[in-house]
Amino acid sequence: MLGLNGRRLDQGPEGIRPSLGPEDIKVVSMAFLLPSDDAPVIWRGPLKMGAIRQFLEEVDWGDLDYLLVDLPPGTGDESLSILQLLPEMDGVIIVTIPSEVSQAVVKKAVTFARKMNVPILGIVENMSSLVCPHCGEYIEVFSKGGGAKVSDEMDVELLGSIPLDPQVASDSDDGVPFIVNHPDSPASKVFAQIIKKIEKKVE
Amino acid sequence: MLGLNGRRLDQGPEGIRPSLGPEDIKVVSMAFLLPSDDAPVIWRGPLKMGAIRQFLEEVDWGDLDYLLVDLPPGTGDESLSILQLLPEMDGVIIVTIPSEVSQAVVKKAVTFARKMNVPILGIVENMSSLVCPHCGEYIEVFSKGGGAKVSDEMDVELLGSIPLDPQVASDSDDGVPFIVNHPDSPASKVFAQIIKKIEKKVE
Repeated sequence: MLGLNGRRLDQGPEGIRPSLGPEDIKVVSMAFLLPSDDAPVIWRGPLKMGAIRQFLEEVDWGDLDYLLVDLPPGTGDESLSILQLLPEMDGVIIVTIPSEVSQAVVKKAVTFARKMNVPILGIVENMSSLVCPHCGEYIEVFSKGGGAKVSDEMDVELLGSIPLDPQVASDSDDGVPFIVNHPDSPASKVFAQIIKKIEKKVE
Repeated sequence: MLGLNGRRLDQGPEGIRPSLGPEDIKVVSMAFLLPSDDAPVIWRGPLKMGAIRQFLEEVDWGDLDYLLVDLPPGTGDESLSILQLLPEMDGVIIVTIPSEVSQAVVKKAVTFARKMNVPILGIVENMSSLVCPHCGEYIEVFSKGGGAKVSDEMDVELLGSIPLDPQVASDSDDGVPFIVNHPDSPASKVFAQIIKKIEKKVE
């Protein structure tokens, strides 16, 4: 998604050097440590915890505005490790789709963060209504209103609902951020609103 | 998705009794062990491995046509445990979306299964073209052709491409299987083709 396929990490004088992605985002990824793009990470929890710790402690991050950790869905080992290794983080952002089914997972994630005493910055509803590129009508691909409902039930702010835009997938496949490539699209405007809210909360 | 929210497991004379879902599918789920639907499973790998082992060994499954294990995305602890605990399984079905980005994950899963000497029954491309319910035109929501491409590159059969149908999400939210509720939809027809291919391979 960031156009960094095939990158490898290398060692600098101050530690492991992250890769530079679009807009000068510094990136490290488990994928950079693997011999090829079809090699899986067949590691159990403790080994993964070790890798996550190294990414936090031994990478020469330099001065950062934000450190963003993109975690797999659910409340598994990786999330647990990150919450334990970064107890003073500014907070957690929970991403969901609108359907009822995914709300159970969101509720678990909210309870998880609360049990770990980590602030929750909010919920983002991803893949909301799609606007048909042919006729302009709205299509609720993954049901409707789940983000608002779970936000209400769990008392967590809904930061925004990002419309489903096929251009997001194709820009990601091209390795170009959608908000750079399509800054005027409705989805990019929601992204911008969400970013503003997060910035305000973190300040 | 199976309408079993809030179910609990109970003990019978021959072991833990699974819950009965639609079409008499016997189901066990970690969710049945949790005190409420917002309680997360904050367990590290070894505990999860124990639960998976219990689900296989101590549940009174009775006579089954198929035992289907639905795993989280990727090649984490749960997948590793299942492949180790069921070394003689008939095979693995890998589900992907059409976009390039998800192909890297599929390749890893294929390599993973091959390393573990488990047969791969095939790849299912989920969330393929959506037919606009208003104008009938095709929309490629998550790009196009990824399933065929990765099937070709990794030499694994593409079992079928299931069109994205908003009714799948809303039936799942209602706890009714889509193929029961909408047997004549194009997506259900692809499901049926895929099932036939799998049955043939497993026989």
